[in-house]
Order: sequence, then structure tokens, then C-alpha cells
Amino acid sequence: MAEQQFDLVVIGSGPGGYVAAIRATQLGMKVAVVEQADVGGICLNWGCIPTKALLRSAEVYHLMQRGKDFGLVTENISVDFPVVIQRSRRVATRLSKGVEFLFRKNKITLLKGCGVLSRSHEVMILDDTGTDTGSVHATNILLATGARARELPGVPFDGDIVISSREALNLSSLPKSMVIIGAGAIGVEFAYFYHTMGCQVHLVEMMPTILPIEDPELTKLLVNQFKKSKMQVYTDSIVKTVTKEAQEAVVTIAQGEKEWQVQAEKVLVAIGVQGNIEQLGLEKVGVEVERGWIRVDENYRTTMESVYAIGDIIGPPWLAHVASAEGIIAVEKIAGLSPRPLDYRSIPGCTYCKPQLASIGLTEQAALEQGYNITVGRFPFQANGKSIALGENIGLVKLIYDKKTDQLLGAHILHAEATEMINELSVVMNNNVEGHDLIKSIHAHPTLSESIMEAAAAAYGEAIHV
Amino acid sequence: MAEQQFDLVVIGSGPGGYVAAIRATQLGMKVAVVEQADVGGICLNWGCIPTKALLRSAEVYHLMQRGKDFGLVTENISVDFPVVIQRSRRVATRLSKGVEFLFRKNKITLLKGCGVLSRSHEVMILDDTGTDTGSVHATNILLATGARARELPGVPFDGDIVISSREALNLSSLPKSMVIIGAGAIGVEFAYFYHTMGCQVHLVEMMPTILPIEDPELTKLLVNQFKKSKMQVYTDSIVKTVTKEAQEAVVTIAQGEKEWQVQAEKVLVAIGVQGNIEQLGLEKVGVEVERGWIRVDENYRTTMESVYAIGDIIGPPWLAHVASAEGIIAVEKIAGLSPRPLDYRSIPGCTYCKPQLASIGLTEQAALEQGYNITVGRFPFQANGKSIALGENIGLVKLIYDKKTDQLLGAHILHAEATEMINELSVVMNNNVEGHDLIKSIHAHPTLSESIMEAAAAAYGEAIHV
Repeated sequence: MAEQQFDLVVIGSGPGGYVAAIRATQLGMKVAVVEQADVGGICLNWGCIPTKALLRSAEVYHLMQRGKDFGLVTENISVDFPVVIQRSRRVATRLSKGVEFLFRKNKITLLKGCGVLSRSHEVMILDDTGTDTGSVHATNILLATGARARELPGVPFDGDIVISSREALNLSSLPKSMVIIGAGAIGVEFAYFYHTMGCQVHLVEMMPTILPIEDPELTKLLVNQFKKSKMQVYTDSIVKTVTKEAQEAVVTIAQGEKEWQVQAEKVLVAIGVQGNIEQLGLEKVGVEVERGWIRVDENYRTTMESVYAIGDIIGPPWLAHVASAEGIIAVEKIAGLSPRPLDYRSIPGCTYCKPQLASIGLTEQAALEQGYNITVGRFPFQANGKSIALGENIGLVKLIYDKKTDQLLGAHILHAEATEMINELSVVMNNNVEGHDLIKSIHAHPTLSESIMEAAAAAYGEAIHV
Repeated sequence: MAEQQFDLVVIGSGPGGYVAAIRATQLGMKVAVVEQADVGGICLNWGCIPTKALLRSAEVYHLMQRGKDFGLVTENISVDFPVVIQRSRRVATRLSKGVEFLFRKNKITLLKGCGVLSRSHEVMILDDTGTDTGSVHATNILLATGARARELPGVPFDGDIVISSREALNLSSLPKSMVIIGAGAIGVEFAYFYHTMGCQVHLVEMMPTILPIEDPELTKLLVNQFKKSKMQVYTDSIVKTVTKEAQEAVVTIAQGEKEWQVQAEKVLVAIGVQGNIEQLGLEKVGVEVERGWIRVDENYRTTMESVYAIGDIIGPPWLAHVASAEGIIAVEKIAGLSPRPLDYRSIPGCTYCKPQLASIGLTEQAALEQGYNITVGRFPFQANGKSIALGENIGLVKLIYDKKTDQLLGAHILHAEATEMINELSVVMNNNVEGHDLIKSIHAHPTLSESIMEAAAAAYGEAIHV
């Protein structure tokens, strides 16, 4: 084919790449996106979105089981697991088609195949067999190929017994038992989902708490909920060996001196991710990599002037909304605008188990370690009217304020609906709303997020309901 | 009894009175609260809270009926209506006891009886029979006796067939049919609840739309949902007569020239409220009333220097969170602080049907009428990933910006979870967060409230997902 000319070629159509591409067309660029798999990337197809669909089934299932509490009578509740999976896949497909629609609407050229940097302004497109199908010319190139699950050393994925989140999203039947290695957000979400569906889950975490980046005051409450529901949670524990047998694996777990074995049909490894950097031709055009992640400057420009990189491929935090924000900044920069830099201290993070855990900014301990003189406001959902009316009164809002400046340093919420509530605090942190300005922002009654206002008031000794 | 001395005596223990009382003790005052019924007032006992408990049962019932969509199989779903009511009563009692606990904790004296102003610094307490049981002396008095349902002229409440929200919260069995007169928040919430439970509801509103104070673009979508679910909704309609028979009433409804009759077991009148001002002894101490509401200045002081009034009794908006905020300001003022005045333009309001409708600030039409040069950003939940994953994708965020100042003039959300999302926009409006400052406040993915960020972006032509 005759070489096509674009202002921007984006490699990867996940929430980094597709958002950047759309923003670029708004700024007048002629854009192409190269994608070798489904449009929308891991997030839409094998991550954030299909997990949320599964978790919704778990939530409704749990509510059904509690029906009697709400005056609702029903019989013979059961799970049709393939339908749960099918719904999740349908949701993913619908959103992927949605992004394809946005591409057409915004006149973005979708190039199917694997994009490789062949020259500083040229991207070669390979087909499934690795054959060169032609190249496109780009004034600028944006790398957004994301990341994939890391393997546990010595325990390679086999797609059947030892699996990653990708397979866990698409099992043909509900396993009787599962060992989940790693209790970060992904591990915890699958642990909650499979446990609720009726699978015996063993969750193994090498750190002293699950969700180790979160505030331990909240993760402790969460672990209590998990244990109360009879999930097996092992912290300070490592997996020593995984021995595969015909239909299952024997997993040897060690906690200090103690060592024991667990049999499980599936072993889900969720110990982190690694960047998809191997097949991009980075060396050829002089794009440098540091410890597995592409090096970028504050404008997401790589060591090659015409090449930018965003999202998981440039390192943590590996969050879809960070990739999107980086993508927008990168293309605004390319367009000659002066976007404000992303404040990495004020980015919300969510884990969608039940109760959900959502946070932004510093934990109490981190704030103290950084030398802040802090005041901490707490509000328990047991004292919140809507929580009680909903029958969802487990959880806590914890806000950490800088005594000197009245600025919010961190916010931590554990509650069935925490992931919606955290965004208000992103507005607070990103706009320097001081303590009393939050307290005086009138919250509707009865709402769960009144607890945020109350936690802020608690930090100043003005809480009403505690 | 020997007359007791207090710095503040509050008459009424609803969300205005009890919040004010607690805040007053934080400021060092010796406080008594006079209450003739249950602590917590209408809101906790016969309003906001027990309705939310009923609506939760409706929500769970609706999810159960949709179980198959989520891969969940169940049989013979039915409603045990008395249990639904009992749960709601239990929730109310728990919260009322909670406020009693807060009174003890804060050393607030609870005086059971009817409080009457006998002198400018004296409150007389009457028992149920109207007998004077003694008086208390108060440096300041705060009136917070709230409001009660208004009767439809010619159709007095009888507590059996023609009822108010109070009886609607405590019916012994599910009526087969109900006419609801008035489609404000209360009428709409009961309409949704009873209709979902299986009662044939006829909702009658004299204005052209239900929820007439809300943006018609959203109420139109809401009415479509109601009608789709086979609720009978009559707008531009009035009730001409209500004729009671043994077990039901015949209601004559007129819409322009048309006129027809509906039979119903219950007629719920929800046409508004009137202040509880009759038995307070207002005239005796010189507290003036204007059109049925107590006159106050910007500090909630009445025409009598030592007497303040807050909440429903001073007129619209009749909202619990407004009463609480007014109560806090009034006692802070009494304590000699300089609280910032409540900005009545930036108060959220919620209707908890399904989908919920929540709003703050001006409607599009009101903004235009006030002469603003506006830009409107819309984002439909059909384009939001979490909405689709939840199976709750009906609704819209609509934001109205002042083109000149980039300030948010109004926000309107229709969605199953709208009432939580609106509080973020209260932070925005109460802290003058400009359009791009909201767009650049990173929202977690996938969340419903990403739609708020997108609606703001849409107002500036920068939305990604539409």
C-alpha cells in the first residue's frame, strides 16, 4: 500500500491510547490507532470492565441471599455460572464496539495488527504471522501498549490450572477451589468474586496485609469481613511450590516457620504486571527503557523526540484513569497547548470487592513519615442513616489533614459504595479545598457521602453524629 | 420542679434541632431539647430515613426479578409486606435511639413534652393532656418544630383511606391500588415504592411535569421509565373529588376537558407541608409569622431577640440538610462565631425513586431566565462503563456553566445512584471550582461519576466518550 501520512499514530487502543486518539482529533490531528487485539485494550476487554460485570452478579447474588432481611421471599437461589461469564463478555464486547464507534465518529483510522517502530516517524504494521503488511508515516507516535500479568518465577502460566486474570474472566465452569497468589486489587477482586459465587478461595499475600498500599486501618476491617465470610486469607505468606496434577494443583504455602499444602482446581497468579515493550522496536529508534518501563519526561516524551509513551508501559501506578489523563496531556502537549501536569499525589485508586476500598493521597503512616503534622478525622458508616437504611453499614471514612495548611493529604473509604464516594475527594485534593470548605459544602441527606463531610468535621472536633 | 437554667433550649429534635443542640454543646453551651414525640423528628422517624429503608426493599426486589440477567436463578419471589414495613420501622427506631445516645454523650437534657414560649427566656413544658409540667429558663431559644403534611382542601386526612406519608410508611398490608396526589419528591418516592411492590399506583400532578422544580429534560426521562413500568402518571391533572366508600375511595381526576374516575384503596395526599407554628406561643413573646412561616433574619433570629428558628418552620426549601446547616449556623452565631452564611443557591436536592433524580443550583431554563450566557454539558450513562457493567445505564448528567465565569450554575443527574453523585457537585459549587478544574480532577475508572467529569468536558467540547 502507499504509505499513509498521519499527524499521530497511537500504538495500543486501551484507555490510554483510545482516549489520547480521540482528544487528538478534537485538537485537529489526523490520527491512526494500531491494535492487534480487541479495541479498548485490557481494561475494556480483560480488566476493569468485565470484572465489574462479574462483581455485579456477586453483589446481586449476595443481596438475594439476604432477601429475607428486606422482606423478600424466594426459593432455590443458584448461580448459572456460564451466564455470569457470558454477561461479562457481552458487557466487554459492547464497550469495545462503543470505542470502535467513537473511532468512526472521530474519523480515526484503525489499523489492525502489531505496530512496530521502524523509523523515528514510521510505524510498521505486522500481521498475526509477523509479516510486514506496510507502514504508516507519523509526525508523532504515541506508545500505549500497556502491560500484562507477571509470572511467578518457576510457575509459568498454562492457561488451564495456573492462570492469570484473563483466564479467570472466562472460565467455563465455577471451580470448586482456587488459590489466588497476590492480594493487590486484582487478586482481592477475584477472591471476593469467586468466594461469593461458592468457590473455596485461598488468598495468599507475602506482605503483612492484603492491599498493602492501602491504609492498614481499613484493610484490617476488610480482612475481618473476608474471614467472617469464611474466605481463607494468608498474609505474611509465600507460595513455595505449585505442583500440577491432572485436574488440580497442590500449592505449598509458607508463613514463617509454618508450611502447609492446599489443593485447588485453579491457581490464579496476580502478583503484578510487566510492560509490553518487547516487540515495539524500541532499540531501533533509540527509545530507552529503564527497569522494564519506557523512560519519559514530564510531557511523556521518550528519549526519541517524535515518540511519546503513556499508561502502564511507563510504570506505576497502573491505572486506567492515569493512562487516560496521561494520554490527554501528551496529545495536548503535542498540539502546542500547555496542559497542567498530572498531580500524581492526588489520584484515586479503587478495589471493587465488598465492602469496596477506595483511597486517594497519603496513608496516615506515609503522612507521618513525610513529616506532616496531621489531624485525622474518622467517621464510621454505622452512624450514617442511609447506610443503615440500605443495610450496608460496614466501613469507615478516614481523612488525613495537614494541620498547618488545612489541606487534605489523604482520604480512605471502606464501604459497599466507596468507589463512587472517592471522586468527591479528588475534586477536593485537586482544587485545594480546605477542611472547613468541605465541611461547609452542604451534602444531601440522607446520603452515604454525608460521612465524608462528617469525617472532615471530626478532624476539627465538629462532627455531629459521633 | 425548680426552674432549670440553660444556655440554649431547642424545641423540636429533628435534623434541625438535634444537630443544633449537639453543635451548641461543642461550643460550650448547656443545652436542653424539648420533644413531644420520638427523638429525631419526622426525618428520622416518619420521613427521609424510613422511606429509604422501604425503597431499599424495592430496589432489592427489582434486582431479584432481574436475577436471570445476572446469571442468577431463583423461584417464587414474593414480598412479605409486613416485614418490609417492620424493617423500615426498626431502622427508624435504631436511628432515633442513636440520637438519644448522642444526647446523653453530649450531656444534652431531653425534656419530653410540648414546648411553649411563655416568656422571652422561658419555655413551658406541657404534657400530653396539655397540662403545664414546669418551665425552663433559657438564655436563647431555638425553634425547630418542623412541618406536617398539608391537607387537600375538602379532603381531610382520615388516617385510613385518605392518608399522609406518615400512614403510608406504616400500612399493615399492601394495598391493591393507590392514588397519590402530588408528584413532588415525597409523592414520587411513594409512587415508585408502592408500584414496585405490586400496588397499582395512579400519580396525579397538577403541573405539566412530575417533580416540577426539576429540569424537565430529566423528569421527562423519569416519567418515561415510570410509564414503561406501567405506572399511571397524570400530569396537568387535578383531583376534583374524593368520595369515600367502605374500603376504598373513588377519585375524580380532571385533565383539561377530560374527566375520569379511579377507584383506590388508599389516597395518599402529598401536596406539600405547613409549618408547626400553632402551639408555640409565638404571639405571646412577639415572634412574627409571615404567610405561615416564622420570620427570621440572616442569622435565623426571629423578631424576638432571644428566639431563633430554623428548618421547615421558616419556609422552603424543606430539606433535612438545610435544617441541620441552619441549626449549626444559628448556634455558632449565638456562640459569637462568624459562620459563613448558607448559600441557598448551592443546596442539593434528591428524589429517591429509580432512577434517582438529584440536582443542585439552577435548571437550564432558570439560568436562561436569569440572563446567564450558558453552555450546557450532557453525558448519558449509556456511554459509561460502570453503568453498563452494573446493568444501570439509564440516565443523564447535565451541567450548566456560566460562559463568562466558567462557574457551575446548576447540575442535574438522573441515575440509579444519582443521590450520591450530586454531593461532588456541591463541593464544586460551594468552592467555585471552575469547569476545567473539574475536568482535570481525575476520577477513578470505572466509576459512575466519571460521567460528571465527562459532562463538564462536554460543555467545553472536550468529552471523550460521546
